[in-house]
Amino acid sequence: MKLLSFRYSGEVRFGPKVKKEEAVWDVLKIQQELQPLKSFPETLIEGVSLGMEFVEQVRKLTEAAKQSDHPEQFKHSFMDIEWLAPIPRPLKNIIGIGKNYEDHAKEMGDSVPEAVVVFTKSPTTIAGDEATVPVHADLTDQYDYEGELAVVIGKAGRAIPKQLAYDHVFGYTIANDLTARDLQKKHQQFFLGKSLPGSCPMGPYLVSKDEIAPMQQLSIVTKVNDEVRQNGTTANMIRAVDDLISEVSKYVALEPGDILLTGTPAGVGKGFNPPKFLKAGDTVKISIEGIGTLVTHLE
Amino acid sequence: MKLLSFRYSGEVRFGPKVKKEEAVWDVLKIQQELQPLKSFPETLIEGVSLGMEFVEQVRKLTEAAKQSDHPEQFKHSFMDIEWLAPIPRPLKNIIGIGKNYEDHAKEMGDSVPEAVVVFTKSPTTIAGDEATVPVHADLTDQYDYEGELAVVIGKAGRAIPKQLAYDHVFGYTIANDLTARDLQKKHQQFFLGKSLPGSCPMGPYLVSKDEIAPMQQLSIVTKVNDEVRQNGTTANMIRAVDDLISEVSKYVALEPGDILLTGTPAGVGKGFNPPKFLKAGDTVKISIEGIGTLVTHLE
Repeated sequence: MKLLSFRYSGEVRFGPKVKKEEAVWDVLKIQQELQPLKSFPETLIEGVSLGMEFVEQVRKLTEAAKQSDHPEQFKHSFMDIEWLAPIPRPLKNIIGIGKNYEDHAKEMGDSVPEAVVVFTKSPTTIAGDEATVPVHADLTDQYDYEGELAVVIGKAGRAIPKQLAYDHVFGYTIANDLTARDLQKKHQQFFLGKSLPGSCPMGPYLVSKDEIAPMQQLSIVTKVNDEVRQNGTTANMIRAVDDLISEVSKYVALEPGDILLTGTPAGVGKGFNPPKFLKAGDTVKISIEGIGTLVTHLE
Repeated sequence: MKLLSFRYSGEVRFGPKVKKEEAVWDVLKIQQELQPLKSFPETLIEGVSLGMEFVEQVRKLTEAAKQSDHPEQFKHSFMDIEWLAPIPRPLKNIIGIGKNYEDHAKEMGDSVPEAVVVFTKSPTTIAGDEATVPVHADLTDQYDYEGELAVVIGKAGRAIPKQLAYDHVFGYTIANDLTARDLQKKHQQFFLGKSLPGSCPMGPYLVSKDEIAPMQQLSIVTKVNDEVRQNGTTANMIRAVDDLISEVSKYVALEPGDILLTGTPAGVGKGFNPPKFLKAGDTVKISIEGIGTLVTHLE
């Protein structure tokens, strides 16, 4: 199921994409007016915490809408909504993984780290699909893109064994882990250089895990102004999603709605000679197989 | 005003300490029953966003309770409450500052960093005063204390000029930035080593800024099992509170309820030869002038 969060007449809502239409089902409206379910989560984070049961609930709601005498009233055309990040405001910082693809570690002039490198991005960085975000020329002249598979946690846990890791996943989306390379280096810890406003576009969809095979071999392609920059596959992660969940949760408690960025393949701007950093007017498009394309405009 | 958060008959509440009594005013109960104010925040984070106006509101509520015919009904003895951290659950990670005291940088074998070093701790690390927290012997054998002045942001802002920084402060509390030194080093980025469950005890009080002079010269003393380990003054910060707010907000948007740990003076366990790391059974007491003493038990 492809879920999205959106703003419609000023309100934050969520729902699944209508199949074969450029529209979204307004599931909160369906529940409010038709009440096919005894209860239904009011926020997507609450929904995500129910895992596949939530996907089932959403399906029941869209079925009820289809069988009603006015299904059109429960849909909004993509023309009429503002896209938000799938989790528009998580309950803590986004968790990021450094150097999780060997070719990227190499292009950064680094070796593959022995222990997993984990940093965070402030939730104030989040932007939706098709957002226009600042290039922050007053703060950095090395603003760089990083196309990444993002994992959304459904079930809370600590010290999660690798074999059970996918039980804790709700689904996947795409993230652009925008990074000010100069600040990242200058301040030693990555947090500041990774937390400029608008530096974490995510979307367009949160795809529930039943649609993405856990033995991940998803192509991941990043284009800047239609020039291919990154062309990788999630199969090349040094630590796969189950490894990451197991390793991070050894130390940090994970909660529903937590977002884990899984690292970026080779081809970031800093990896080119001379480097190809972002400038105002650029458009970055990140496509991941089975999820879609996340578009970000820099200004 | 000394505010605290607490649990009473299963509910999370907050209120000011009753003067000269070991008790707290239950301001939500006062508002509910006597309604002296048209409206009053339901959460402390919402209150904090109102700044000194909130302090004034709380004062009006306690006055109304005192003048009622049953003031005792609006107080809870400290015997009857469970202490929580003043902000029991912030809306994002806690922001920490590395090496902000020269003597501490030295004892860690480091020079003073040229650019401010900023990391985060997961909100799942928070514990209240008198909490018993795990020493995590299965994950680290270098668990260390760090007594720190914590700043609670009241007013949102970005690129806050130093001269206006204190306008954005609501108040201050004490934090114990518990750190697994081995993990901090091994994983390069501090996040994991700083985010073990229970690794951020805070409290006991959130003291509103009107009671703490901005030109800070507060003594800060950490004892482990009554042995003095840290004996510093916040006057020795390399970057003072206004500097830190200005510098961090240059890059990251600050929001009400955000917590900024301002770094620790010399005397951490790692600074001794041989090192004096924490073990099960230890008790850490951190006292900061004008705020009180934060007590943490390790198990």
